[in-house]
Amino acid sequence: MTASSEISAVFQHPIRIYWEDTDAGGIVFYANYLKFFERARTEWLRALGFGQQVLRDESGGMFVVSETTVKYHSPARLDDTLLVTAELQTGGKASLTIAQRAYLCTPGQTTSSERLLAEGTIRLGWVDATTLKPGRIPAPVLKAFK
Amino acid sequence: MTASSEISAVFQHPIRIYWEDTDAGGIVFYANYLKFFERARTEWLRALGFGQQVLRDESGGMFVVSETTVKYHSPARLDDTLLVTAELQTGGKASLTIAQRAYLCTPGQTTSSERLLAEGTIRLGWVDATTLKPGRIPAPVLKAFK
Amino acid sequence: MTASSEISAVFQHPIRIYWEDTDAGGIVFYANYLKFFERARTEWLRALGFGQQVLRDESGGMFVVSETTVKYHSPARLDDTLLVTAELQTGGKASLTIAQRAYLCTPGQTTSSERLLAEGTIRLGWVDATTLKPGRIPAPVLKAFK
Amino acid sequence: MTASSEISAVFQHPIRIYWEDTDAGGIVFYANYLKFFERARTEWLRALGFGQQVLRDESGGMFVVSETTVKYHSPARLDDTLLVTAELQTGGKASLTIAQRAYLCTPGQTTSSERLLAEGTIRLGWVDATTLKPGRIPAPVLKAFK
Repeated sequence: MTASSEISAVFQHPIRIYWEDTDAGGIVFYANYLKFFERARTEWLRALGFGQQVLRDESGGMFVVSETTVKYHSPARLDDTLLVTAELQTGGKASLTIAQRAYLCTPGQTTSSERLLAEGTIRLGWVDATTLKPGRIPAPVLKAFK
Repeated sequence: MTASSEISAVFQHPIRIYWEDTDAGGIVFYANYLKFFERARTEWLRALGFGQQVLRDESGGMFVVSETTVKYHSPARLDDTLLVTAELQTGGKASLTIAQRAYLCTPGQTTSSERLLAEGTIRLGWVDATTLKPGRIPAPVLKAFK
Repeated sequence: MTASSEISAVFQHPIRIYWEDTDAGGIVFYANYLKFFERARTEWLRALGFGQQVLRDESGGMFVVSETTVKYHSPARLDDTLLVTAELQTGGKASLTIAQRAYLCTPGQTTSSERLLAEGTIRLGWVDATTLKPGRIPAPVLKAFK
Repeated sequence: MTASSEISAVFQHPIRIYWEDTDAGGIVFYANYLKFFERARTEWLRALGFGQQVLRDESGGMFVVSETTVKYHSPARLDDTLLVTAELQTGGKASLTIAQRAYLCTPGQTTSSERLLAEGTIRLGWVDATTLKPGRIPAPVLKAFK
């Protein structure tokens, strides 16, 4: 299975690399992939019908990240465009694990040439936004993810 | 003159607010508007035909920011969409000053309801990318801006 | 008056430059000086007896930045140590303006060799932390600054 | 073995939480722990005699992060002080894995009350700073770590 067929089956979000994302090594600072992954998860959630601010206002709760793993395969640079994916890996009432990948988009080439830059998993729990005590993920959100 | 007519005459770039952009005050951290302004400037430069990495590779130089001023009128929050503008205020061979504004986009309303959140000016110089010594802005770039 | 005598009269806070602070230009990303200035202001406020979280819990309010100006004179690089200063420029019941400077510390040299990298002013207002409506700066805070 | 005895055996670096580190959830944004871990690694390397900029200038190479894992146990908040540790987990000629932890420091209490907030592992490779091709970690650096 090629990168492209993997991508096409899951949610995708494009991200442009700006100066703010790079470091003095001339490449994207590795911690920033966690930001890129989150932007893609947020847009995925929004595409499923759930804005996080509205979700918080209505339910009184919010997602918190409980575990992250990231493997970095190849660096991105200033002006690159990435395609970041998000898909459910495992999900229960108290936590979800999202698998995410960042690919480099090469302008003017077919999508089959996309190169995997980084991949990881993000485990999310749900907490009361005021007390930060763990709770159950709202059923409609859980249902939408699956 | 309304905000909207001001906007329509200049370059515009949409920016979504994510968790990474906010702080514990519940609003967008003020330093991040400098990032938003830069994203819009970068896309404007790209729309004019100049990617910054290519520009650096070809000319050996890069823009550096020599002065910034920002006024903050109203806060942005998680999930908001901003419209960020960029336009030339003054330009010479050694430096350019770009005027920039960030407006809040209200979904489902006419653009005349956009609210000015922040505005500022960014003064750019040009330096040799290796020595960081000041130089002249490449003529094609200068011409494109005007 | 030399840089050093200027520094000695005002609050100073040391800041180390890490990879996270730099960009692909090989120098510190300019927006980060607003972070450095804020760290110094925060430590200054703490030295005066006011932690911001405690202040918020007790007064229900918080500072918000209403205007910033920064001039960038010379770049900082990875592993540099900066000395960041903060001093009151003007202060009233509804807003304060803080003057701030970042100097490069040269190890093993006398302080008179410190080089001014950036300087700016930060105007602060006070708001209710929940409604974000403007209010008066708590009298003890205002008194401590003066 | 208590947290404190674990800490005392390894390199420690204090980190203060500022507004820039928090998000609208009222807690430290999770991606920032990778920054905190890196600051501690950098200071550890410096304490061992190796500044990264000097290392790069002299060897032509630099560390790159190839894999990160982080578990988040408890949130940090504005004004908190963390103690971040770094110790070698495994090390070879081409890569090192550093184990890192972030503890909350409670002022005025004995260190035995420190609370583990987050822990993780950072795998580092070594590359030529220009070509980004993998290489061997300089022997003096490797020796110092062990």
